[in-house]
Amino acid sequence: MRVCEKVAEIRSVVRELRRSGPVAFVPTMGFFHEGHLTLMREARRRFPSVVVSIFVNPLQFGPAEDFAAYPRDLERDLRLARETGVDAVFAPARTEMYPERPCTFVDVERLTGVLCGRTRPGHFRGVATVVSKLFNIVQPDAAFFGQKDAQQLQVIRRLVEDLNFGLEIVAVPTVREADGLAMSSRNMYLSPGERRAATVLYRSLQVAREAILGGERDLSAVREGLAAQIAAEPLAQLEYAEILALPDLTPPHATDKELLLAVAARFGRARLIDNVTVTIGEKTET
Amino acid sequence: MRVCEKVAEIRSVVRELRRSGPVAFVPTMGFFHEGHLTLMREARRRFPSVVVSIFVNPLQFGPAEDFAAYPRDLERDLRLARETGVDAVFAPARTEMYPERPCTFVDVERLTGVLCGRTRPGHFRGVATVVSKLFNIVQPDAAFFGQKDAQQLQVIRRLVEDLNFGLEIVAVPTVREADGLAMSSRNMYLSPGERRAATVLYRSLQVAREAILGGERDLSAVREGLAAQIAAEPLAQLEYAEILALPDLTPPHATDKELLLAVAARFGRARLIDNVTVTIGEKTET
Repeated sequence: MRVCEKVAEIRSVVRELRRSGPVAFVPTMGFFHEGHLTLMREARRRFPSVVVSIFVNPLQFGPAEDFAAYPRDLERDLRLARETGVDAVFAPARTEMYPERPCTFVDVERLTGVLCGRTRPGHFRGVATVVSKLFNIVQPDAAFFGQKDAQQLQVIRRLVEDLNFGLEIVAVPTVREADGLAMSSRNMYLSPGERRAATVLYRSLQVAREAILGGERDLSAVREGLAAQIAAEPLAQLEYAEILALPDLTPPHATDKELLLAVAARFGRARLIDNVTVTIGEKTET
Repeated sequence: MRVCEKVAEIRSVVRELRRSGPVAFVPTMGFFHEGHLTLMREARRRFPSVVVSIFVNPLQFGPAEDFAAYPRDLERDLRLARETGVDAVFAPARTEMYPERPCTFVDVERLTGVLCGRTRPGHFRGVATVVSKLFNIVQPDAAFFGQKDAQQLQVIRRLVEDLNFGLEIVAVPTVREADGLAMSSRNMYLSPGERRAATVLYRSLQVAREAILGGERDLSAVREGLAAQIAAEPLAQLEYAEILALPDLTPPHATDKELLLAVAARFGRARLIDNVTVTIGEKTET
């Protein structure tokens, strides 16, 4: 496995890899858990070559957010990537990605005015900008993203379409702990009590999904139930609980078939997000 | 010469061309004059393959600007491109470039707060967005731009650097009529009287450059003289006359070596721009 710190280096490694066929790309912020490894394994299974980037992107963190505290363990990450059969890792320093104060930013409008886009101003600008940079550096044939970051996934799909990046976006289902908690590098911030409390996110999402699948069409009532169940957990500080239509993240109408149920809440210093999607059939009038 | 209207088509033509070596790209809005042809000839001279795009990009025109009136003559353009030895022309319809109302925009900040960026809000967002799209579609090894659009050139250089587009930007000197008027598709809007009056732009720029080369270091006096000379032309409506440091388009300091002298003015319904650059030596105290 090749490990590259420089843009020029990874470009030339990818050029080589491309000779054996299409190249898959898994952009990450490192500190790998099963979610990351599943992305890499999926990429490995479907493509002859897999490139992974590890970069904690300062541009997507707000001034009051956890950029400095964000967990990092490059050595362990490299070992895990190697064991998973990754061909090359791009792990640039901050100065390699941003040699100067950047002037250029990529904005994905509309899709970013809701959910995390509302509570983390500038976050998706940072994501869209760094992902554009990484796509230009690696020029992959496909890029793999987790469904865990549902809004990010839609933003990147739209970015790829609007800016004509010639690559396929592959979404991979959220990987969960045995009790349902979505895997996240930020779970390490949780105290044992907060760790138990955090399971309320997935539990309440499942209840809401079951209600819709069971025929409930009053989505604001479902949304309120979802919010109330999380708010009832003493260690949870609810940030949002929303039901939106996919893929545009717009308020849902009776004709929408694909819904996203998405939540964000703080448990101590950990800000966690989770989501499920629901496909609904024709609304039957009975 | 291949003429492609579809993104998928030009992608596959470029893939073929790339087998014979690096590909040069000349993005244009069509209605070719000697300036465009010089870009193509330069590209032809330096690269084995040349791709030209012809697309009047609605995104870079303000609501009160001349998008609808902007001159178009695709047949003549294709003939001229063929005669110049261009390998492929990409001439997409508006719906091919913007199949939906776009969500994604590329902004180059700071550099766009001056000159045309101030008087044409949204213009450089439109330019940076369409150029990003075209770069992603064509994936050239080099792209050729005219020095005539000096601010656009700096914006695109910065875009390429910040977003890691792996290509070289080649600047080509402004091509002028015998009397010095910079070639522009918008010169066709000029009445004979306005056409004569418009020569004031280059004449006044030359006077200002000569003053600086002659040792004048009071740049605000030079700038005021430049503005006054244009304002004195009855058919000219001055928009701006500025002296800025290259490459960042910041207010010039005594230590700056590369200056841009840039002007914009209306003559009837034609809004024209022009510029010269000046390289100054060490300031000598005498």
